[in-house]
Amino acid sequence: MRKIHVLTRKEDINREKLTDCTAVVIDALLATSTIAAVLHHGAKEVIPVLNEQEALLACETLTEESYVLCGEKGGHTLEGFQNPDPVELLKRDLSDKSIVLSTTNGTVAVQKCSAAKSVYTSSMLNGPAVASHIKKEQDTSSVLIVCAGSDNRFSLEDFLSAGYLISELIKENNLSWKLTDSAKAAFQLYESQSHRITEVFKDTETGCLLAELGFSKAVTYAGQSGIIPIVPRWTNNRLVNAKRVSC
Amino acid sequence: MRKIHVLTRKEDINREKLTDCTAVVIDALLATSTIAAVLHHGAKEVIPVLNEQEALLACETLTEESYVLCGEKGGHTLEGFQNPDPVELLKRDLSDKSIVLSTTNGTVAVQKCSAAKSVYTSSMLNGPAVASHIKKEQDTSSVLIVCAGSDNRFSLEDFLSAGYLISELIKENNLSWKLTDSAKAAFQLYESQSHRITEVFKDTETGCLLAELGFSKAVTYAGQSGIIPIVPRWTNNRLVNAKRVSC
Repeated sequence: MRKIHVLTRKEDINREKLTDCTAVVIDALLATSTIAAVLHHGAKEVIPVLNEQEALLACETLTEESYVLCGEKGGHTLEGFQNPDPVELLKRDLSDKSIVLSTTNGTVAVQKCSAAKSVYTSSMLNGPAVASHIKKEQDTSSVLIVCAGSDNRFSLEDFLSAGYLISELIKENNLSWKLTDSAKAAFQLYESQSHRITEVFKDTETGCLLAELGFSKAVTYAGQSGIIPIVPRWTNNRLVNAKRVSC
Repeated sequence: MRKIHVLTRKEDINREKLTDCTAVVIDALLATSTIAAVLHHGAKEVIPVLNEQEALLACETLTEESYVLCGEKGGHTLEGFQNPDPVELLKRDLSDKSIVLSTTNGTVAVQKCSAAKSVYTSSMLNGPAVASHIKKEQDTSSVLIVCAGSDNRFSLEDFLSAGYLISELIKENNLSWKLTDSAKAAFQLYESQSHRITEVFKDTETGCLLAELGFSKAVTYAGQSGIIPIVPRWTNNRLVNAKRVSC
């Protein structure tokens, strides 16, 4: 049986325990929703970085016009950056662009997971695609779902999105999976709230903060279930659609 | 509005942030269920300690026949100690006894919370009593529910019991409470599972371990909702029933 475990915060990641795991990072508001959205709308890759400085360094390796620089800290747009609001970003021409992305929690969590056997990102938008891809792998490694959380704290939207991913992973053959306590909690919580995800997202701590900052459309967007068939996979320090990798 | 927050593991306790909080520690399998049970069955007090050595030191201050020494580590009974299985303990005469209690998670969590403004312990057994007592306090401090967890990990039974406590706290006037994301998750999870608590308890990681070790009756016992009207409160390095304190 393949194990599924959930960490509720990026601060709980233990690099040494990661190496044999398939890690899936979730920061549903907004980093990993943005990643799914931009890859679906033509971006070539997302380069997730730890902070503003790393973002600027990453841009130095890219040719002008080939990238979009996005970043926020605590919900506020970094100066000279685009806000990583998917609703606004998708209005731009992202075709074959590299998206350099710096966020408070999500991109930091991806970097912290880089030692894992394989690293994906997921969200409400692309949970079924990620689950389907993982199920097709010839692999029995444990699936470690890492909720980015928010500055050291539990985030309800990440935990719910973890539950959605789990429900998609186990739905055809739940006997082939062993869920830890945190995975069971996320799954049971998702099952009880699946009919009102948008409402729950709007009522979360980050959802309320984003609404205050003028990004309520982004919260509604990120609460949509399974609308994007993209599997962002960590490859050569960037996230690309796994289907493109395997072609 | 009074805030309710939930920590999913004792390792997340930040002593400095505790001082203005009402802390409620939950280790439903088994420490805080045992504490409620023994106080209800006549014990004078419970002395929660960090480990075997501290337990033996605590006994030195007590007269022979006045105490019962209970302790486990990783589910296994400490040599020379009684196992803190409430079902077995309640067969003894506990009248006016001090229960010296050392457990892997619960008693350690209580000690780690000792800097809080006030400290209670709760479980499925006595959640309504603890909630009722907290609601009657002339106090607007944040309620911090500390799930002990299990050796650094999330425990489903503690999170569910936190949700039960929250449902009892908010049920008459939910507008007077502000729930953080983790509190909402625990509450929503409890609401969805309240009809099958015993089943969920048996299926948790600790529930399965205890069954393997021969304590399945204790798991069933601890899964009972609201059968004990005891409010264990931390006073002078020990837990006593708050109602007795206030008389």
